[in-house]
Amino acid sequence: MNLILLFKDDFIPGTNMVHLDGRRLEHIQNVHRAAIGDTLTVGIENGKVGTGTITKLSDKFLEMDIAEENEPPAPSHVNLILALPRPKVISRVILSASTLGIKKIWLVNAKRVEKSYWQSPRLSEENLNKQLVLGLEQSKDTIMPQIIKKPLFKPFVEDELPEIMKGTLPLVAHPATVDSSPERSGRQITLAIGPEGGFIPYEIEKLIEYGFTPFTIGERILRVETVIPYIIGKLS
Amino acid sequence: MNLILLFKDDFIPGTNMVHLDGRRLEHIQNVHRAAIGDTLTVGIENGKVGTGTITKLSDKFLEMDIAEENEPPAPSHVNLILALPRPKVISRVILSASTLGIKKIWLVNAKRVEKSYWQSPRLSEENLNKQLVLGLEQSKDTIMPQIIKKPLFKPFVEDELPEIMKGTLPLVAHPATVDSSPERSGRQITLAIGPEGGFIPYEIEKLIEYGFTPFTIGERILRVETVIPYIIGKLS
Repeated sequence: MNLILLFKDDFIPGTNMVHLDGRRLEHIQNVHRAAIGDTLTVGIENGKVGTGTITKLSDKFLEMDIAEENEPPAPSHVNLILALPRPKVISRVILSASTLGIKKIWLVNAKRVEKSYWQSPRLSEENLNKQLVLGLEQSKDTIMPQIIKKPLFKPFVEDELPEIMKGTLPLVAHPATVDSSPERSGRQITLAIGPEGGFIPYEIEKLIEYGFTPFTIGERILRVETVIPYIIGKLS
Repeated sequence: MNLILLFKDDFIPGTNMVHLDGRRLEHIQNVHRAAIGDTLTVGIENGKVGTGTITKLSDKFLEMDIAEENEPPAPSHVNLILALPRPKVISRVILSASTLGIKKIWLVNAKRVEKSYWQSPRLSEENLNKQLVLGLEQSKDTIMPQIIKKPLFKPFVEDELPEIMKGTLPLVAHPATVDSSPERSGRQITLAIGPEGGFIPYEIEKLIEYGFTPFTIGERILRVETVIPYIIGKLS
């Protein structure tokens, strides 16, 4: 936690003071080993980054006086359309995407996504939200990303994608193509990444039909948890 | 497993046939659901990529006829000097580095590496080797990376680093610097990445004294498992 993320409900009404307990209290006590008077980096959800000065501290709760200071880091210029990854990695993929500053993630179905993945408890609002918050705390960001689940591929592409990709450079990572990845352009990008084993030809053709350009990152097949930061790095 | 990695000992002496059991047999049966006559992608450790045609298959073992075909993918142009990560992530960091084609990894000590990390069973030859093999199998590579453990920072930098970095562009990722990451140059790179919390000033100064250029990837602090593919992507 490089920043303590604060929510509206943490504030004592009518004051600049927050009242914290649970996970954040524990972390501040056990990792920061903070004492009354210490100042920590904080961020207000969807707001500024600043400092919190501890004014009360006990085993049950703490209070901090909050001073807002700077804007959070710029968001990534990439929005992500991601074939739903296997449950084992979903939490760390979402955490990592949040850390990288990606602000919109569509989790979509694809032929090679196993149906059972959609039933995973790791896809609960609660877990996804937790990973997003951990990611923001890691990267000292405050802007909550959005995750939108799309369990039907075709209606998603046909009915929603045109609006989503409007004004952006739409790219799909596809190992079987010969085009290598585009140079950094500074443009907003809509990036689609397929499941293990890749999108099937029908899905790739559908994405191309709707304006996507396929690109390859080379011969190596990377796991989803590696390929996302790799491509974001390449495009940044 | 996008490729079945084969070792010298797998070959039946004087033939092009391999005899497999254990993990690879299980994978070929349960994931590939292969039958006699099927052809799988194989690679020979530190050798070529090719195909294996199954000639015998039982619950206990299988045999394949091996045909060598192509060179493995080109290695990464980056060698990695990595402050030893926390045990919880070491396996997936090594697997991911192997997948990215990094062929030399020095795991080094730093002030902010907890001493206990060096005692982790995850640092055993056996576990590290397993992660490297899983990484090669993922990226269809055959060239075994080397991992060299360096539990003393100063003698490593003073006595070994000059030789290691010779002829390469030496870079150290350092959030506190203002220089942003260099453009892709095609040169061989020696990349140093610090521990959680970063290298301390003494360590950064030491690396600079020995010729390293610090660079930052921006305001965001990424976890080690995210920052390695991100920087490799940026430099590739």
